[in-house]
Amino acid sequence: MVDSFNEVILLLDFYGGLLTDKQRLIMSYHYEQDMSLSEISEELHISRQAVHDVIKRSEKVLKGYEKELGLVERFNYQKIKMIEIEILLKRNNDENSFKALDMLKELINM
Amino acid sequence: MVDSFNEVILLLDFYGGLLTDKQRLIMSYHYEQDMSLSEISEELHISRQAVHDVIKRSEKVLKGYEKELGLVERFNYQKIKMIEIEILLKRNNDENSFKALDMLKELINM
Repeated sequence: MVDSFNEVILLLDFYGGLLTDKQRLIMSYHYEQDMSLSEISEELHISRQAVHDVIKRSEKVLKGYEKELGLVERFNYQKIKMIEIEILLKRNNDENSFKALDMLKELINM
Repeated sequence: MVDSFNEVILLLDFYGGLLTDKQRLIMSYHYEQDMSLSEISEELHISRQAVHDVIKRSEKVLKGYEKELGLVERFNYQKIKMIEIEILLKRNNDENSFKALDMLKELINM
């Protein structure tokens, strides 16, 4: 099961560009810079309730995009499959396999 | 350079789920089933101009999502890199490399 906090961080990675500037800023403060609602409220001169509402609304928007596009689910699946491929190629222990593995890692994480 | 028609087909593949039902239907008629504006107009009992407007609006929406998320660009990049990895692993000509390649193809096209 995916931890909800980490889930939102991943959702932000994938769909953050689709939020408004204000939503993205507040979500970044809260989820990436670990600021409390009170700290964000003081920083932006808006009420704590307003900060809370933006966060809840943004989470809903992000989850809506994930429901339609499934990029986080795909990413999590790719991570597992990548480990399997890595085990397979490392067993080969030859130059081509290691080079292919490096290219593959670059490909998935781009 | 990407052909505009094929570009829209790809955009539909990636972001079609974010269009409204009506937009998705009309875009599918036009781009995937190759129906003319007049044919769609007759099918849905709306004016040819309305069909045209929905298509132009949908294209703009799809391109907006691509601008923010870049999934089609990423897909095109991955396709090229995949060919390079495939050449490398096929040179190995061993069981692990072929198995890894199969898994990789499944991973990228999922």
